Amino acid sequence: MTAIALGLDFGTESVRAILVDATGRQRGLAAVDFKHGQITESLPGSSARLPPKFALQSPADWIDAAIAATRAAIKQAGIVSREIVGVGVDFTSCTMLPTTIEGTPLCELPKFADQPMAWPKLWKHHGAISQTERMNLIARDRNESFLKRYGGTIGLEWFFPKMLETIQCAPQVAGAAAVWIEAGDWFVWQLVGCDAAALTRSTCQAGYKAMWSATEGYPLSAYFEAVDSKLAEAIAHRLPGVMRSPGQSAGGVCAAMAERMGLAPGTPVSTAIIDAHSAVPGVGAADPGTMVMVMGTSSCHMLNATQFADVPGVAGVVEGGILPDLFGYETGQAAVGDAFAWLRNLLGLDSFDKLAEAAMKLPPGADGVLCMDWMNGCRTPLMDGALRGAFTGLSLDHGPEHLYLALMEASAMGLRWIVELLRDGGVPVDRFVATGGLPHHNHAFVEVYADVLGRPIEIHPSTQGPAVGAAVLGMCAAGSDVTGFASITEAAAAMAGGDAVASAIVHPRPERSDAYDSIYDQYRKLADHLRST
Amino acid sequence: MTAIALGLDFGTESVRAILVDATGRQRGLAAVDFKHGQITESLPGSSARLPPKFALQSPADWIDAAIAATRAAIKQAGIVSREIVGVGVDFTSCTMLPTTIEGTPLCELPKFADQPMAWPKLWKHHGAISQTERMNLIARDRNESFLKRYGGTIGLEWFFPKMLETIQCAPQVAGAAAVWIEAGDWFVWQLVGCDAAALTRSTCQAGYKAMWSATEGYPLSAYFEAVDSKLAEAIAHRLPGVMRSPGQSAGGVCAAMAERMGLAPGTPVSTAIIDAHSAVPGVGAADPGTMVMVMGTSSCHMLNATQFADVPGVAGVVEGGILPDLFGYETGQAAVGDAFAWLRNLLGLDSFDKLAEAAMKLPPGADGVLCMDWMNGCRTPLMDGALRGAFTGLSLDHGPEHLYLALMEASAMGLRWIVELLRDGGVPVDRFVATGGLPHHNHAFVEVYADVLGRPIEIHPSTQGPAVGAAVLGMCAAGSDVTGFASITEAAAAMAGGDAVASAIVHPRPERSDAYDSIYDQYRKLADHLRST
Repeated sequence: MTAIALGLDFGTESVRAILVDATGRQRGLAAVDFKHGQITESLPGSSARLPPKFALQSPADWIDAAIAATRAAIKQAGIVSREIVGVGVDFTSCTMLPTTIEGTPLCELPKFADQPMAWPKLWKHHGAISQTERMNLIARDRNESFLKRYGGTIGLEWFFPKMLETIQCAPQVAGAAAVWIEAGDWFVWQLVGCDAAALTRSTCQAGYKAMWSATEGYPLSAYFEAVDSKLAEAIAHRLPGVMRSPGQSAGGVCAAMAERMGLAPGTPVSTAIIDAHSAVPGVGAADPGTMVMVMGTSSCHMLNATQFADVPGVAGVVEGGILPDLFGYETGQAAVGDAFAWLRNLLGLDSFDKLAEAAMKLPPGADGVLCMDWMNGCRTPLMDGALRGAFTGLSLDHGPEHLYLALMEASAMGLRWIVELLRDGGVPVDRFVATGGLPHHNHAFVEVYADVLGRPIEIHPSTQGPAVGAAVLGMCAAGSDVTGFASITEAAAAMAGGDAVASAIVHPRPERSDAYDSIYDQYRKLADHLRST
Repeated sequence: MTAIALGLDFGTESVRAILVDATGRQRGLAAVDFKHGQITESLPGSSARLPPKFALQSPADWIDAAIAATRAAIKQAGIVSREIVGVGVDFTSCTMLPTTIEGTPLCELPKFADQPMAWPKLWKHHGAISQTERMNLIARDRNESFLKRYGGTIGLEWFFPKMLETIQCAPQVAGAAAVWIEAGDWFVWQLVGCDAAALTRSTCQAGYKAMWSATEGYPLSAYFEAVDSKLAEAIAHRLPGVMRSPGQSAGGVCAAMAERMGLAPGTPVSTAIIDAHSAVPGVGAADPGTMVMVMGTSSCHMLNATQFADVPGVAGVVEGGILPDLFGYETGQAAVGDAFAWLRNLLGLDSFDKLAEAAMKLPPGADGVLCMDWMNGCRTPLMDGALRGAFTGLSLDHGPEHLYLALMEASAMGLRWIVELLRDGGVPVDRFVATGGLPHHNHAFVEVYADVLGRPIEIHPSTQGPAVGAAVLGMCAAGSDVTGFASITEAAAAMAGGDAVASAIVHPRPERSDAYDSIYDQYRKLADHLRST
């Protein structure tokens, strides 16, 4: 009997449950949408409009959808629960919530049901603008050492700004919060029984979204005091739990959740991981120097390296943040699939299929059209959500295909900028593996990336990289005695990187790659102009 | 019996014949398309592809279409030929051709029928790029005095670059050219019988497109010698004719053409005028300080002033170029209706009607979207056809209506730039009259112009401003004895500016106008960036 692991991959709209065995075979897969999806207009059961930039979720949706998806995957696989040796969980981040000491989300208490701040804030909730500004200002003023791990900037979407927003804007909610927690950690906590003594936090989520490091811990209390004394108090007393790395066990599935999900009680559960980061084990790319590009609505690029480097603009460097004993570098682009969908709608098109053919016949540089893909701000390297996109070089001869190619080129040049920054900072980037929904749906897009980077790009065949990664971590949580895998690297290679899942490789075309050197210079000049206005 | 004048308005695709009487009543109107339209792909009867940027026309098309339109207008008016006291002609410019000494276009000689350079070059023919560069370089090097009348730059579309292109690229055609001539002058010459001794050239066309001035004449022979000795020779010997102002008689209709067109032999014909400039008498705006904006595919803005001013970037200042005794200032925007049609096609829309409503509900500045409308280069003030357009400030929240408003704003800010330049140079601009097709079809567009300029804009009710202007000039050619008008100003006021043709006035909305001051600053910064890349 081959060991099977369950991966639960919590995305923005749905959760996917995947069953993968130790040889890399996918045995079952089911996706279930969250009943309320993203809550951006009004709270469930209310007609009061939420403020702009709010994006919340419902914790009950997560549980209900995970139960339905897990049961469907098990049914599809035709297995019995005890064949599942471990469970892994990846989750969007920083999606976070306040709970009671028993783990009950405050939004599920009747007195707080109508309080937006009592609900989980989704990663893309952008309500904490002034709080982020204040935290950055004071951190820079105090020259806080943690800044250098984050390219000098605390992100709008991170844990503490979201927490401070609630403390400042909904003090009664904040007062009732015994536990502030990442959604991935919360779900794992639910699985293992919600004993306050058994709360395990992920070094990945804490490291990338809460300024925590293995050597320095959280920022000093004096810093938080300078920001807001209530924030300092909450961080000191309302962040219970122990830190563990993804792949390490956070406990066994409790009886109640085992019953609801159709799992065997006591099945080991891995510590959570951020969804994007889960793609690194999920595509079997555990070697330093391989950039794993998770391309979807936005893009997240993960890279492991053997040493720490202070690279300006690189938003997260966490020791052991993705894989044990390696420094995980996280970079990202704020609008990728989103920007394509936006352009498609703008141009009145149902699909890009026809346009792709015309676009790929154009020379590099789209006959002079240059694009900046900052339609949702710039994540890496500028960390500025207020930046905006552009098209320049437009003439009456240009059609939709020019804008489409220019947007693909802009996206690729955004990544080239990131890669050049990393290399200039001494971090090797040798190999590119693309995963996520976009590379599978849009081959033209990957070709442009290969041309602009001047390097081959491997498209990992799984469209479920993060989910497979969660399964790999679930397998590891079961322990080497059960699985025979000595390390995560070994498990990842067997489950996600074997011959059965060979990648397609898109090679750059030298004659096009050469042309992109000067186009890239123009792109950087445009970036300079747009930053300065 | 009220005197009636015929105006023949030659546009890019068609000719309009209008009959207007001395009281301003329109008695007949007919438009006939040119059989071959713009010749940009291949010559009639040939499958050989023309080079890019070529735009030619057929002289026979002009004659045929003018005959058909005139006959149709006369029929519609129900008048007899002797009721028409004069004929005026306005024409696109610089549209030019080489002919024999009898006025036969070289393209109509069998041996030259397959030579593109033997055909009339339409105003938008852009084949003379290197010739224009050479002429500018040498003129600047020699610090030629004529440059200051043209904002320091000879235009790509002007007479001598087009002539030099033929001399350099088709010497056998150039060698056979006894007469080089503007199409408007050529048509007038045809009307009056093609006697080489009776060739009249327009001060308007020569002044705006051939660097001629009443006080200095053409540039010095030494300048042309420095450019190309064959050009100097041709200018010395192959530009026969006398200079007259629009409204002055160039002769009477010859028997042959009278027969073909249905006119009375001997009917006085006015010296030609450029189509755009014809709108000044055509909207009855003969007073200094009134800017007449002819808005169509591109825009041409005419302004009369009592004194000469050297305004950098203002492409043409000609004494008596539009009206006698006044300095005519010509400025222009290269893409207006063209840019709107381009955007409409790009967005996959059939019309802007629905979008206009949404666009006009947006605040000034289109929620941060900024546009540069240089999709066909920048005419005034930068005189650079290679410049390209842009949209900046784009976010995922923006839709087609944002781009549409931004484009309207860019067009209006382009005019604001021109107006500020003129005023800074000491040229008063007090009043704005819009004419041409666009203001009638697109009210939103005029509202945005009024808001951005902060001044009311009068929309002249005639959609036939240039055609009416040609009729005014035809009336004047008949002489005050016949018409009773002592001056062009008087004729224009009666025929085009009376109560019967009262303009609609669009007023600026102060709350929007105020907002445009800072948006205009951003627009100028974007212009600086785009110029420098």
